[in-house]
Amino acid sequence: MTRLFNDPADFTDQMIDGLVAAHPERLVRVSGGVARRSLDEEAHVSVVIGGGSGHYPAFAGLVGPGLADAAVMGNIFASPSINQVFSVAKSVDQGRGILLSYGNYAGDVLNFSEAQERLRAEGIDCRTVAVADDIFSAPADALDQRRGIAGDLTVFKVAGAAAAAGSDLDEVERLAVKTNARTRSMGVAFSGCTLPGADAPLFSVPEGMMAIGLGIHGEPGLDTVPMPTADALAELFVERLLAEVPDGLDPRGVRVVPILNGLGSVKYEELFVVFGRVSALLTEAGLELVDPQVGEFCTSFDMAGASLTLLWLDDELERHWLAPADSPAFRRGAVSPSATRVRQAVEADSASVQIPEASSASRVNATRVIAALDAVADALAENAESLGALDSVAGDGDHGIGMKRGSAAAARAARGAQEGGAGAGTTLTTAAEAWSDAAGGTSGALWRVILASLGEAVGDFDPVGPRVLADGFLAARQAVAAAGGAEIGDKTLVDALVPFVETFDREVRTGASSAAAWRAAAEAASAAADATADLLPRKGRARSHGEHAMGSPDPGAISLAMIAEVTRPPVRIAG
Amino acid sequence: MTRLFNDPADFTDQMIDGLVAAHPERLVRVSGGVARRSLDEEAHVSVVIGGGSGHYPAFAGLVGPGLADAAVMGNIFASPSINQVFSVAKSVDQGRGILLSYGNYAGDVLNFSEAQERLRAEGIDCRTVAVADDIFSAPADALDQRRGIAGDLTVFKVAGAAAAAGSDLDEVERLAVKTNARTRSMGVAFSGCTLPGADAPLFSVPEGMMAIGLGIHGEPGLDTVPMPTADALAELFVERLLAEVPDGLDPRGVRVVPILNGLGSVKYEELFVVFGRVSALLTEAGLELVDPQVGEFCTSFDMAGASLTLLWLDDELERHWLAPADSPAFRRGAVSPSATRVRQAVEADSASVQIPEASSASRVNATRVIAALDAVADALAENAESLGALDSVAGDGDHGIGMKRGSAAAARAARGAQEGGAGAGTTLTTAAEAWSDAAGGTSGALWRVILASLGEAVGDFDPVGPRVLADGFLAARQAVAAAGGAEIGDKTLVDALVPFVETFDREVRTGASSAAAWRAAAEAASAAADATADLLPRKGRARSHGEHAMGSPDPGAISLAMIAEVTRPPVRIAG
Repeated sequence: MTRLFNDPADFTDQMIDGLVAAHPERLVRVSGGVARRSLDEEAHVSVVIGGGSGHYPAFAGLVGPGLADAAVMGNIFASPSINQVFSVAKSVDQGRGILLSYGNYAGDVLNFSEAQERLRAEGIDCRTVAVADDIFSAPADALDQRRGIAGDLTVFKVAGAAAAAGSDLDEVERLAVKTNARTRSMGVAFSGCTLPGADAPLFSVPEGMMAIGLGIHGEPGLDTVPMPTADALAELFVERLLAEVPDGLDPRGVRVVPILNGLGSVKYEELFVVFGRVSALLTEAGLELVDPQVGEFCTSFDMAGASLTLLWLDDELERHWLAPADSPAFRRGAVSPSATRVRQAVEADSASVQIPEASSASRVNATRVIAALDAVADALAENAESLGALDSVAGDGDHGIGMKRGSAAAARAARGAQEGGAGAGTTLTTAAEAWSDAAGGTSGALWRVILASLGEAVGDFDPVGPRVLADGFLAARQAVAAAGGAEIGDKTLVDALVPFVETFDREVRTGASSAAAWRAAAEAASAAADATADLLPRKGRARSHGEHAMGSPDPGAISLAMIAEVTRPPVRIAG
Repeated sequence: MTRLFNDPADFTDQMIDGLVAAHPERLVRVSGGVARRSLDEEAHVSVVIGGGSGHYPAFAGLVGPGLADAAVMGNIFASPSINQVFSVAKSVDQGRGILLSYGNYAGDVLNFSEAQERLRAEGIDCRTVAVADDIFSAPADALDQRRGIAGDLTVFKVAGAAAAAGSDLDEVERLAVKTNARTRSMGVAFSGCTLPGADAPLFSVPEGMMAIGLGIHGEPGLDTVPMPTADALAELFVERLLAEVPDGLDPRGVRVVPILNGLGSVKYEELFVVFGRVSALLTEAGLELVDPQVGEFCTSFDMAGASLTLLWLDDELERHWLAPADSPAFRRGAVSPSATRVRQAVEADSASVQIPEASSASRVNATRVIAALDAVADALAENAESLGALDSVAGDGDHGIGMKRGSAAAARAARGAQEGGAGAGTTLTTAAEAWSDAAGGTSGALWRVILASLGEAVGDFDPVGPRVLADGFLAARQAVAAAGGAEIGDKTLVDALVPFVETFDREVRTGASSAAAWRAAAEAASAAADATADLLPRKGRARSHGEHAMGSPDPGAISLAMIAEVTRPPVRIAG
């Protein structure tokens, strides 16, 4: 379990401070994460990696010459927010373009993709490679649905080396894509981990058993079997990975980098025992081993488990894999003499936002928005724990914390906007950004989309009748579908959102008032959310932490229904 | 717990194979451990480190240019044997002398010291620095009684850098001694570890509690207190370490290297949270932080715990600390271009031993020795588990395994010698070496001394009367006292050995037969061994893993009594 912390709410922030204090020559804190302190003489493509915290040395331990320029650091097991990605990337932009790379999870995809759009909107060329190496998270014909685990390292390393060598963004992207396509991992777990301040493990594996393919946040695996010997585990690793050789390569004579990764409390001696057999088996299969790595590269606190990754080399990948690098957790060879220029720490950007003009009617509506958001924040704060418990059935357990943090920030930001004279629309869009920024993760990204769509529809001038709201909800549904890719029946927030939006629209079409339509819609959302308990999570839906087990409703759907209920007009103005 | 293993008896061996397979460019297996694969153009002082296994990256992870030339690798938590130390050191000797360095534990001191004598006997200049950084293991005025923990790294690093820089042995030793004198550590533990194949943890800490000063093998600490916050732990670390500034230095303005070490399952994020506060506190105290290290440097499998080490620098220590190094687990800067010459793996030396001539009477006595050793091996194999359980009360739990392994090897070697025509004396001395080599640890070293003393006294020609045996036992007692330094009442094997020897001698002086004297002596040993349960381990006896708790007898004394009993003449010849 995680034992050393102060206020669990401060954990990530204090962890980043300590990391930078431990590597003052290497790292500098920037808004949203950490960046390389030294600046090279020649500008190069910036490689920006990141994801949720709790996986050190992924991601911040891999920042340095020959590797990443910066790491965006989300809360524990939660994707960083759009703003975090955007501001970290901006802080290391050198004018040669940016490669964003991260593990292929729903929240990360949502937030990094949106940040990429914003960077492009500022004229910064930006590409994305989401690492997808976990062979058990989706079938071989759905590679883009696979999760990223310890294979992250190969993609980051090759991309970082290509950037350091002066390659342009096209080339860095091409090599990262190729590395991702030639990296395969499989993992096993023997126990879960307990997050800072939590009473119970996020997930667990029965004593004496091994879960095959269990994800690094506890995402369901393939099977649970009795604990094997070290040799038998090595045999399982090698057999499964050799059953999926990329590009139909003949494995004989091919050079591969094996990476045997410990998840946290499986220790070096054990890994070496397993690796002895892995090494022999790969050699027997005719492969040539290059530069093996045995240690901790992608952890989940003290989770007990291990993974084996194979990077199938060709000449150019091998050259880049073997190039020098100097990061806190991965060092090899001699990087060029350290630069004399250093980057300064960057404080969070607190530039004041221009509030557009608004009609007085809309400014009155803004107070209703605030009342609704206050009610949401109260309800989510009250229910954070139970939502987290729902999420931990098979997800990463942070849904409650994220929703609480996001809604509180949204209510605060909304009040600030309204006090600055904002109309209802701007109040909602301001709240949307604040929610996303404070929460990160999938829910932060999706609630940003919902509130922003509604804010666009509502605007700052016109009266807000039932039709305007219905159109806003329809737009939100559309935007969520576009962002998340989930469909109805996938056991996500969409299962409650769609009935809410369709019921509201139908009621309005038949002449109902906003309040009446909202009541009916909230009831529909609530029923639908409860019904998600009967859904089986979509097999192989790798782009989510939360493949929630049968019998338990989806926490995203439940929280949407809760929000629909507490925002039913007329919302009581909080005293 | 340790989950990944095959036959637990093969664990260390397979671990070493895997380690070398993971670092084929860096390491080569030599008899007794691992050595650097690359050979420098210029000969330099060889730095040989080592100790029990289970603490990776201590010790084998620190072998490489700028660090150690080789690591002697004992069994889990057990000192390597004399032969192991000797042969590893021989294999890396470059003619400029050898520095042996290891943590200050009884078994290591015994085995490394004896190996040093053998190396010197071959004309190889050899010095020893036993690292003693753990401030809780003995008071400040008994520095040489302190145990070595994560502060190992500072001594090895400075010595390795000095050797790489071409310093002579005097200078390397001087710097290592100085570094040891300026290194202070304190550790805390939250849980114990379970060794490969064991049913239960070797030791434990009550849930929610923290043991202050608990050793890396479970040696008793100072106190057990409720689990503090990360900040409170940082404050405890800094307060205690600043209360013992070496050499009466004024800490203000002094440059220190802080090393925050995780024992195994306390993970990086937690260490960074603690380090953030450690860093602030040290800076507030006026210290200048140089090159902090936060990670895993000396582990105990998945034990949960942490330690803080401070190395108090001066200019020459800082220069050597910051010099380049390239080992599996510790890399910094760029070492000189890798040498073209490489070392070949060294197989265990199987040169046949010359067996000296013997009288036919003595060759008949040799069969009695074998029968006795067979009886010992049988008894220890049968009781290995209960002896291990006794040992785990507060020791490292390997006493039973070590005694079983050692006695089996001794019986085997004795048979080989006798079949080659050896007399009783040579059969005993051959068995002595085999025992030590197979067992390692404290018990291996002491039983070697006992059997060898007896063999010397018995010789290969003369009849073995009661007086010869009595003189042999007296010599054994003397030799054990000289080797181990333990006195009667210290709760060690000495507590049973002394009554055995004295009773035997007294009985013989009054005219008793060997059989009668042996019976009386064995009874005295047995009573004395049982009585060790009432002894309190000597406070601060840092040179031992096994400060066995009150109420439980000492396993070394118990096994001596058991051996005395089963070897009582006439020993039944095993069929």
